[in-house]
Amino acid sequence: MPDTIPVDSVGLITPQVAHFDTPLVLACGQTLPNYQLVYETYGELNADASNAILICHALSGDHHAAGYHSMEDRKPGWWDSAIGPGKPIDTNHFFVISLNNLGGCSGSTGPTTVNPATGKVWGAEFPMVTVEDWVETQARFADRFGIQTFAAIVGGSLGGMQVLDWSVRYPERLQAAAIIASAPKLSTQNIAFNEVARQSIRRDPQFHDGQYIEQDTIPTNGLGLARMLGHITYLSDDSMGNKFGRQMRHDTYQYNYEVEFEVESYLRYQGEAFTKRFDANTYMLMTKALDYFDPAAREGGDLAKVLSKAQCEFLLVSFTTDWRFSPARSEEIVDALIRSGKHVSYTKIEAIEGHDAFLFPIPRYMNALRGFLSRVAKRLPKENA
Amino acid sequence: MPDTIPVDSVGLITPQVAHFDTPLVLACGQTLPNYQLVYETYGELNADASNAILICHALSGDHHAAGYHSMEDRKPGWWDSAIGPGKPIDTNHFFVISLNNLGGCSGSTGPTTVNPATGKVWGAEFPMVTVEDWVETQARFADRFGIQTFAAIVGGSLGGMQVLDWSVRYPERLQAAAIIASAPKLSTQNIAFNEVARQSIRRDPQFHDGQYIEQDTIPTNGLGLARMLGHITYLSDDSMGNKFGRQMRHDTYQYNYEVEFEVESYLRYQGEAFTKRFDANTYMLMTKALDYFDPAAREGGDLAKVLSKAQCEFLLVSFTTDWRFSPARSEEIVDALIRSGKHVSYTKIEAIEGHDAFLFPIPRYMNALRGFLSRVAKRLPKENA
Repeated sequence: MPDTIPVDSVGLITPQVAHFDTPLVLACGQTLPNYQLVYETYGELNADASNAILICHALSGDHHAAGYHSMEDRKPGWWDSAIGPGKPIDTNHFFVISLNNLGGCSGSTGPTTVNPATGKVWGAEFPMVTVEDWVETQARFADRFGIQTFAAIVGGSLGGMQVLDWSVRYPERLQAAAIIASAPKLSTQNIAFNEVARQSIRRDPQFHDGQYIEQDTIPTNGLGLARMLGHITYLSDDSMGNKFGRQMRHDTYQYNYEVEFEVESYLRYQGEAFTKRFDANTYMLMTKALDYFDPAAREGGDLAKVLSKAQCEFLLVSFTTDWRFSPARSEEIVDALIRSGKHVSYTKIEAIEGHDAFLFPIPRYMNALRGFLSRVAKRLPKENA
Repeated sequence: MPDTIPVDSVGLITPQVAHFDTPLVLACGQTLPNYQLVYETYGELNADASNAILICHALSGDHHAAGYHSMEDRKPGWWDSAIGPGKPIDTNHFFVISLNNLGGCSGSTGPTTVNPATGKVWGAEFPMVTVEDWVETQARFADRFGIQTFAAIVGGSLGGMQVLDWSVRYPERLQAAAIIASAPKLSTQNIAFNEVARQSIRRDPQFHDGQYIEQDTIPTNGLGLARMLGHITYLSDDSMGNKFGRQMRHDTYQYNYEVEFEVESYLRYQGEAFTKRFDANTYMLMTKALDYFDPAAREGGDLAKVLSKAQCEFLLVSFTTDWRFSPARSEEIVDALIRSGKHVSYTKIEAIEGHDAFLFPIPRYMNALRGFLSRVAKRLPKENA
């Protein structure tokens, strides 16, 4: 809880809801007759709607990227370090939009909302959604604001995949793309970890084939396990080592299965906390969206050919200790962009935080984002630049 | 199943059982009044009992390291590629012993055997055992054979930890130590993965707090999950990529949670198969033995100081793509050995197989082991050398 709102904060923010009644045909073949998206905006949209930046969130993210919902909030939004007046995503210049993706569990239509056709909570009946579906809903969302072209679209991890997809499927609708700690598709190992996470959830008897809300329960054991596992893959071996090492709870070994090393306690806590804020079906569905993403497959596996459609300029950022989406995965995108003759800047940031580094205000990283977006800002009408 | 036994095989092998009636005080403080170890031997023990090699097994290993139990066996023992006449661990020279560790589930006293004090299966009541406890049982086992000094003790992964412990706690009882794909202690990340595996098992309702055998059931879901996760960490990202890539079961995405990518099917199969051959309590206990191992802690964290007690010569082997026990972990041991003035050879083997590489007959690796042990063989009495 801030005593006072910091001067470089976007301040108190109220999430809003946008309803859409035009049916949406999803990649899976199903049609949503209508849906809603919850969102936040920071800064002011300018007269010609040219200063908008879209933030795309990652697996467990949501629309609350910056600022506070109330003076009682313990923490600001998940990317508050990057978004605000004078910050790299500078709300003095830009109008920033952050929405909860379709299928999410923070207010947008998804597994925890009611299926109007049945009057019951969707649960596992909610259709699978893909990165492409999200981009489609985000494009419609932009239409609603009269935003023909985004000044920039920015995202890390799964968010970066959305940015990548935007750049090739709506090339004329963004000036700049920042793709952070991402990959052009999952590796086999990535898919394997996702599958273990899904199996953890599905094997929890409280999952009830995804209809747990109807049963008035939650698969806390399975979802907690999935998060524990995910969490290990978000951190680097070194950062876990620095943070916990082999620190023990007691002076000597206890020779039982209770917490012996502090890292065990930390993981259990992380797992449990997650089950209180996140929905298992949404987690399942988001991991599948990750698995499915493979834009190069549309061109026989030729990433450069797909990217040749892009018209924006790119910033790619990776982090040295990220082993979930290693620098090599960002470099695949960079190489393909260079091969297809695009404007691309790339920086590999020395960071100990692993994949999670994209959420940290690491100076070199923040400066890269700031520099890239300041160039974008210079092209805005005089009153915003 | 072999049509005929290969000439370089140790042939048909019958496991044997050794009973021990001298009470064993374990590190955890509990005492086993008696216990049995199941074992196999290959080759012949020489007159002065100087040509014995002890094989220490890893997490899911057992005593069946080489040869066949019957002509119907689909596969030979787990390290058949390394053990046999003319092979790196050459039974023409050496008498090789491989036993199932205490607490195992392949015939040695452990959670699946009967507690004589209660007449019931031990289950979760079986005491925790440590690497040090295993070395103690192995030393007693050697006494039974009249083996005062092993020509060599060899092991990979958790097996390597046993070898390391032998070298400093019974320095006069081995001439040579081969420590393969191992580490002087687990990293925080290693412990974290183990904890997720244990939680997978404990959270399975069929686990019944470890007394599942009494309940006539098995925690297949949890143990299967633990194995799926473990399996990912045994393989390298590249080897999984080479083997499965993004190969799909169907021509197009199915948009459901059934097998979509072949790697999912593979993992589910691996998990399920494991539950048919391995015990969940043993798995739990072996992961704890891994967590606990930290010989340097006995000397205030100074590994070189602990290793200064060793008298044998060492071979250390690591594999480039092993990220469970990376080359850097082996190099910690190597550096400490050099610092303490020991004879040590170290080779980092280019291999795609990840941690599992230690089970593969990679030529450079096999040649290193062969060379190291041939030097050992030269010191044997004339009839064995």
